[in-house]
Amino acid sequence: MYEINETHDPNLRSWVESANDPNTDFPIQNLPFCLFRPDPEDEYDFRPPQMGVAIGDQIFDLLSAHLNGLFGRRFDDIFVGLDEFSPDFIASMFGPEPLSDLRTEAMNVLNVNAPRSIIANAKKYLVPMGGVELELPFLIGDYTDFYCSIYHATNVGSMFRPDNPLMPNYKYVPIGYHGRASSIVISGTDIKRPHGQNRSDAEKPPVFIPARNLDYEMELGFFVGRENELGTPINIRDAEDHIFGVCLVNDWSARDIQAWEYQPLGPFLAKNFATTISPYVVTMEALAPFRTPAFERDAADPQPLDHLNDEQNQKFGGLDINLEVYIQTERMRQQNIEPHLLSRSNTKDLYWTIGQMLTHHASNGCNLQTGDLMATGTVSGKEKNERGCLLEMTWRGTEPIDLPSGEQRRFLEDGDEIIMKGYCEREGFRRIGFGECRGRVLPAD
Amino acid sequence: MYEINETHDPNLRSWVESANDPNTDFPIQNLPFCLFRPDPEDEYDFRPPQMGVAIGDQIFDLLSAHLNGLFGRRFDDIFVGLDEFSPDFIASMFGPEPLSDLRTEAMNVLNVNAPRSIIANAKKYLVPMGGVELELPFLIGDYTDFYCSIYHATNVGSMFRPDNPLMPNYKYVPIGYHGRASSIVISGTDIKRPHGQNRSDAEKPPVFIPARNLDYEMELGFFVGRENELGTPINIRDAEDHIFGVCLVNDWSARDIQAWEYQPLGPFLAKNFATTISPYVVTMEALAPFRTPAFERDAADPQPLDHLNDEQNQKFGGLDINLEVYIQTERMRQQNIEPHLLSRSNTKDLYWTIGQMLTHHASNGCNLQTGDLMATGTVSGKEKNERGCLLEMTWRGTEPIDLPSGEQRRFLEDGDEIIMKGYCEREGFRRIGFGECRGRVLPAD
Repeated sequence: MYEINETHDPNLRSWVESANDPNTDFPIQNLPFCLFRPDPEDEYDFRPPQMGVAIGDQIFDLLSAHLNGLFGRRFDDIFVGLDEFSPDFIASMFGPEPLSDLRTEAMNVLNVNAPRSIIANAKKYLVPMGGVELELPFLIGDYTDFYCSIYHATNVGSMFRPDNPLMPNYKYVPIGYHGRASSIVISGTDIKRPHGQNRSDAEKPPVFIPARNLDYEMELGFFVGRENELGTPINIRDAEDHIFGVCLVNDWSARDIQAWEYQPLGPFLAKNFATTISPYVVTMEALAPFRTPAFERDAADPQPLDHLNDEQNQKFGGLDINLEVYIQTERMRQQNIEPHLLSRSNTKDLYWTIGQMLTHHASNGCNLQTGDLMATGTVSGKEKNERGCLLEMTWRGTEPIDLPSGEQRRFLEDGDEIIMKGYCEREGFRRIGFGECRGRVLPAD
Repeated sequence: MYEINETHDPNLRSWVESANDPNTDFPIQNLPFCLFRPDPEDEYDFRPPQMGVAIGDQIFDLLSAHLNGLFGRRFDDIFVGLDEFSPDFIASMFGPEPLSDLRTEAMNVLNVNAPRSIIANAKKYLVPMGGVELELPFLIGDYTDFYCSIYHATNVGSMFRPDNPLMPNYKYVPIGYHGRASSIVISGTDIKRPHGQNRSDAEKPPVFIPARNLDYEMELGFFVGRENELGTPINIRDAEDHIFGVCLVNDWSARDIQAWEYQPLGPFLAKNFATTISPYVVTMEALAPFRTPAFERDAADPQPLDHLNDEQNQKFGGLDINLEVYIQTERMRQQNIEPHLLSRSNTKDLYWTIGQMLTHHASNGCNLQTGDLMATGTVSGKEKNERGCLLEMTWRGTEPIDLPSGEQRRFLEDGDEIIMKGYCEREGFRRIGFGECRGRVLPAD
């Protein structure tokens, strides 16, 4: 699955002109899956959302294209369950391979060298991205959040335990915990500031008030494609066969609620009021040119235990994905000031690979199901401008950030919008992007 | 919803004779919902599991009964979606009330005073409990586990922090965390001993081995019936309107994995390899006679914050449910020794009510969905024989338990079966029971 082949050829071009723009997130080499409503204004359209791939500034409607003969008959089986035509349905019924084949098929159809008759036909199934409503790309059964940036863990740990920032388990265990699946929302959904118990004054009882220290966390998410049975672990050598693709994740966090509630069982209400994901699932195939070696451990660090250690994973298990976080406040919008870059980090700085996270998760026999979402935890780098959340950037609010509007931020204010972006770049390959993961903070009720 | 009415009349009798046995779990006053496959041997039966109510030693098939005219036409709408005929489907489509009505309707049909023609017809839709296969009663989207027994929390806390057993948040926050929904299994499912990282020797690196300190946790579970929208909390006064019914939960736990992994984000692989639930959902209506005042706090303890405080909830929010845990080892089975009672506890000893747990969960706007499962955490009482898990009973394995077979247990051995039971008793009312929640430990691979 790390193989680079002709589908990654940077010279491939599409007849969808916008896909050939060097700055597009969605060249023909990407083709991430999404679920969309073609006509969100039509109140009589009761069809389930349709599956498409993003290409340039368009969505290519896979179902309509297939129904009109653009893909081989071998996909008939897949499209039988029209009502349930969604990536998780197909992957759970047939395994993830048909989706991979379907993407290749779409690549052939969208290619500038496709036969003219095919192109003429296919054009009918393009829908402008701006006109559709995107939905969660998978039915997410369970959501697990990891804590795999050693820089993030060290920063956060040293705020609370200066002498002993990293727990002794950190270099052995890809630390993770269960998150809330029901409150995962798609990019663009407004986020209402949650109420919660706050005990910033330890001399007084806690008070139930709107969260004061609202934060974002810049994470990478990945979806399970192939399931494992309960009781059957996943070998680290096979881990990537179980991963379908990735997206961006904003793990909104209320730090004041978190500080008071998290002992001894971990974060709960501080996190489960909302988690935003980007709508496009960038496939592992599209990411092949952007694989890197796993994190290079210090010589003094332990090697991963055997069940998390694999030569291929060590060589190619990392991901070179650039992640950017922007903020635009209400005042910035009023003054027409563009979103302001807060941080830039990269998933290659994660201490554990996504394959290790998945193998660890199933190492006790826990069954992972198609559509389950896992996230890496906040992706922070070594440098100050690579910190993936405000808690780290402002060091618990003690070092506020200056914005171009003249405002300062310790934590998020009402009206602030957080915009996350992700992309991969490598000499000799087309840049591929992830689209956006955005959400605006609304005042508490 | 705390109202006692004619459906709780102890003199109600059923023409299903086994339901009139004073020791049955399922008199006509109970009628818990379940999902069952009528003919598990029939490999050509591709129908989804059917919804029924338990009565005596029988399951009454609600769908077949309705299709044959036993219930009013007003239920037609509900039964339209035959393929998806399950409690969570109905409750999410129509709200939980139709299920409550359906149960009352079934009560009329199963009543000894029902017209003869109805009884003759209804008899056809009884299936012996022993011949069916029971399935998870709800599609469980999210699973949340609380930690609401102050005795359990104090016991466990004092093992790890003798000077400071209870965290300062305990008396303000119904502590909870997210569990894994995918690995929830129905009573009777074998539980394979999980592998995990064990670092019992702090001088050496951890080892990846089968869990040594396998444990059960005796909990009460409750299902969400009515949903709330994301961003919309649930008032404590309305909390019980959102709870459909209860079941027994065994939150299997690997204590050696837990001790090593749980800092700083809480238990993960120590718990998510399996959670067993009993198959029958005992409705809140059936439980009305067994409501008790909320836990009586010490005078020095804080009162719940306003959003968790309600007069009705203080008066009736508690539950008087007896919980029993039995063990039967392999040797006990060979020697025909009956399961041995390990503990007996009661949910009235919980520090927080289920209404407070639910309101707390949604207090930040987290959306609860029909079929979501919440569990109370280990239900332990004050006394030694009321401790709901082996960790407490054997005090981390330092005080092993003697079994009638001459064996001892610190934690669970392969072949051990844990059988949990629950029932309510009150002078002037019929005893109602919960059925069993059982699971046997299989050796690790």
